[in-house]
Amino acid sequence: MASEKIELEKTESGRAGLESTIVLASLSPRRNEILKKLEIPFISKPQNIDETVAKWKLPESVKMLAEKKLKNALEDSSLKNMRWFLAADTIVSCKKRIIGKPSSIEEAEEFLVYLAGKEHKVVTALAFFDRNNGKIAIKHDITSVFFSKMGKNEIKWYLSTEEWKGAAGAYRIQGKGEFFISRIDGSYSNVMGLPIHLFFSMLCDAGYPVYKFPAVFP
Amino acid sequence: MASEKIELEKTESGRAGLESTIVLASLSPRRNEILKKLEIPFISKPQNIDETVAKWKLPESVKMLAEKKLKNALEDSSLKNMRWFLAADTIVSCKKRIIGKPSSIEEAEEFLVYLAGKEHKVVTALAFFDRNNGKIAIKHDITSVFFSKMGKNEIKWYLSTEEWKGAAGAYRIQGKGEFFISRIDGSYSNVMGLPIHLFFSMLCDAGYPVYKFPAVFP
Repeated sequence: MASEKIELEKTESGRAGLESTIVLASLSPRRNEILKKLEIPFISKPQNIDETVAKWKLPESVKMLAEKKLKNALEDSSLKNMRWFLAADTIVSCKKRIIGKPSSIEEAEEFLVYLAGKEHKVVTALAFFDRNNGKIAIKHDITSVFFSKMGKNEIKWYLSTEEWKGAAGAYRIQGKGEFFISRIDGSYSNVMGLPIHLFFSMLCDAGYPVYKFPAVFP
Repeated sequence: MASEKIELEKTESGRAGLESTIVLASLSPRRNEILKKLEIPFISKPQNIDETVAKWKLPESVKMLAEKKLKNALEDSSLKNMRWFLAADTIVSCKKRIIGKPSSIEEAEEFLVYLAGKEHKVVTALAFFDRNNGKIAIKHDITSVFFSKMGKNEIKWYLSTEEWKGAAGAYRIQGKGEFFISRIDGSYSNVMGLPIHLFFSMLCDAGYPVYKFPAVFP
């Protein structure tokens, strides 16, 4: 019991103790990065769930997947002392086609050929849980992303950067992907997988002590 | 002469040699970060110019300041062997008021009180020079940024993060500033001070070998 507590208190951002530590039910390095940047204490506990969706509907399916990850984490007995939980899911949608993470460089190329010169939407759903009252809040954010035209050679070059790996839509806006993005309309961090403004409002609504970080509120 | 060359070839991103190295005529750590992220070889040579503008006009005044920084760098005899030069200037504009970097925490507070709950524009001008043909290209990008309402306590907390220091408009979108930004319309990196998509198109127009980085083009 004592050793379990000690383990939990070693948060990845290195701050604060158990009471304000959030369990991040996600593998995504980008979500990890964002929470670190925001200096919010968390531990990362990725959940392996079946992400198959019989019939995609936006934003419902993304919200359902985020909720599924969240509930999976809640069932983890090693986390029964934790109060706050966050799960997320992100998808790219273009002209009613749903685009996830490419499984090969060939699929990544096909995604980029499809997205080039078009507008697409990035949808992220967040599920946030407070064990003190048992409430789950699930919200989503949508950002429009405008890709410029990309020639064959540009796509080949972009693939050589390897940014397509593990990225919904086969690009990373926070990397060299922005070379080809003429503009966005919405939240930037939403495209990275964790919409900061929405997350902040959900933290405030839930009574999470956000103003404790990084400085003690005056 | 030999020692000067060696010095120039030690680029900050640690890549490539003199031929493709860009002189970045800017002090901004954010512009440095962006070029590093893009893996474009550069050396940083900040220029101290008088940034006083008698009568602000957008985007003309921002373009004029970027050009002034560029020309200042071109006159630097230690850089006479360099081919490519980049200078930039960024300003925040809200309801015809021009907002630069705050000089004190009190001024930063006044800026945030003013920007909260409103839309403002961020304008960045880029000036790019190729010594091989003596051509200067000057272009600009504009992004709309929408701030949510901020209470007195929220502003006090945000000031305690110290992100206001050295930032036009007293916030950093790439930091905790995004807590209070409900959405943007335009380029995200433009708000950071170096619009990547515009910069990329200027590099391509100038015949800069952008596809050499980070991978040799197949």
